[in-house]
Amino acid sequence: MDKKFEITGTTKLTCLLGNPVSHSISPAMHNASFQKLDLDYTYLAFSVDETHFERAVDGLITLGAAGWNCTMPLKRLMYERVDTLSDSALLSGAVNTVVNRDGQLFGDNTDGYGFLQSMRDAGFSCEGKHAVLLGSGGAAAAILAQAALDGAAAIDVFARSASASTRLIAEEIQRIHARCDCRIRLFDLADSTSLRHCLDEADVLINASSVGMAPHTDASLIPDPAFFHPGLVVGDVIYNPRETLLLRTAKEAGCHTFNGMYMLLHQGAKAFERWTGREMPVEYIRELYFR
Amino acid sequence: MDKKFEITGTTKLTCLLGNPVSHSISPAMHNASFQKLDLDYTYLAFSVDETHFERAVDGLITLGAAGWNCTMPLKRLMYERVDTLSDSALLSGAVNTVVNRDGQLFGDNTDGYGFLQSMRDAGFSCEGKHAVLLGSGGAAAAILAQAALDGAAAIDVFARSASASTRLIAEEIQRIHARCDCRIRLFDLADSTSLRHCLDEADVLINASSVGMAPHTDASLIPDPAFFHPGLVVGDVIYNPRETLLLRTAKEAGCHTFNGMYMLLHQGAKAFERWTGREMPVEYIRELYFR
Repeated sequence: MDKKFEITGTTKLTCLLGNPVSHSISPAMHNASFQKLDLDYTYLAFSVDETHFERAVDGLITLGAAGWNCTMPLKRLMYERVDTLSDSALLSGAVNTVVNRDGQLFGDNTDGYGFLQSMRDAGFSCEGKHAVLLGSGGAAAAILAQAALDGAAAIDVFARSASASTRLIAEEIQRIHARCDCRIRLFDLADSTSLRHCLDEADVLINASSVGMAPHTDASLIPDPAFFHPGLVVGDVIYNPRETLLLRTAKEAGCHTFNGMYMLLHQGAKAFERWTGREMPVEYIRELYFR
Repeated sequence: MDKKFEITGTTKLTCLLGNPVSHSISPAMHNASFQKLDLDYTYLAFSVDETHFERAVDGLITLGAAGWNCTMPLKRLMYERVDTLSDSALLSGAVNTVVNRDGQLFGDNTDGYGFLQSMRDAGFSCEGKHAVLLGSGGAAAAILAQAALDGAAAIDVFARSASASTRLIAEEIQRIHARCDCRIRLFDLADSTSLRHCLDEADVLINASSVGMAPHTDASLIPDPAFFHPGLVVGDVIYNPRETLLLRTAKEAGCHTFNGMYMLLHQGAKAFERWTGREMPVEYIRELYFR
């Protein structure tokens, strides 16, 4: 038997909490990385909802878990629960990665890093740039915080007015303004005049909403190709389909496009590093699970 | 990558709770069995003491663990905690194996089965026999209950009087008498006249105490070879050394001897069956970890 696959009495637990989690790629990704580097860890997925959140966290602390990820609907609850926060977690108001240090919980949010690393993979960066961000959900909040931390010059956020998530984004913008030198403005997604004007001046457009995701692949928040200008960098968090209608329209208008399919890979790589102190073998994992 | 080693979002957790657990063979044994049978389970070990017992169990229920083992000092606490009990757990007053059925906990004690299966491996049985049992700890309690359930005709237990564990054994004997047709008597270990008399009439002698275990390998509860008679079957729960002074003395006096080194294997096999509904590949595991 290959020694690298052995789980023993000293193997440390890491895991994913959320609901649903059974189809997550994270267990495969992390376990393959532990095995590749011969690290004595394992990663499981536990289906946990809000009502069982506190008991699950108490249990993981009691069992001495090294750390964990959490996904919807637990990211904001975890933000409230942890003892200390990374900058990206503090600014975004959400935690997707926890490190357990003898019961003291450190919370990070690696989702924004994941998307922006995916963008760097494609040869682009937000640093010093003017970006337009579409959406107000968890992905938008994480990308907004990380882009500001990474040195974006300006970010115009377009979100549906009067939604709960947009109120959270407004609070996030205040936190970011207090700590980062990045001009952020919030617009109503229905305000197409402002959207067109902002896009004219922008270097980067990121769709962080779910509009365009399968099965509704004929939807796009920017159906009019006149909103794009050649040279604009356009990215999409959606990876099913790999090329959304937004990306196709943008490409036809002369934009550079990329999608966020490696967001999941890179958010996991950052979490992996938090738990183990080692770099995830990203290219190996990309070959195994992201082709 | 070998598919059998993959842990995914659907992999079910089983584990060992106790302290210390880091050197336990159970994770290796169960994980190798899951892999051999391509079962979607994993087995970890968590260091948990009495003060964290309730939180650990709550956590395992919340995380949806399929089941777990517990070892010292948690076997009696688990007996109090579970919702339903097997006969061997009920009679012995201890639980080493738990099955979690949507938060309803079923407790079993597979330690006695483990030892008696080890005895059957060696070609002997307690059924219809008169046995002498030395000791009053957890192993003695488990073997006493299982031997009675397996149809032993009579069991004479020799334990140190006035010890807490002997009081528990006395309570156990009352429970067994209420349910099994097995005559059980409790003697003081210091009463060598009774010990010799009982051994003269016995078919089987089992040492379930730790006397003779390394590093005190020159100790035996029955140093006088005159206490043995040819044909007596003598077994020992101690597996370090594999042949205790008790077994060596007995063998020299013409007794059949066996040791309980497979007790751990068979208690695990029974637990494995409780969790998965499948038979552990016992011979495969014996070759891997018990040679």
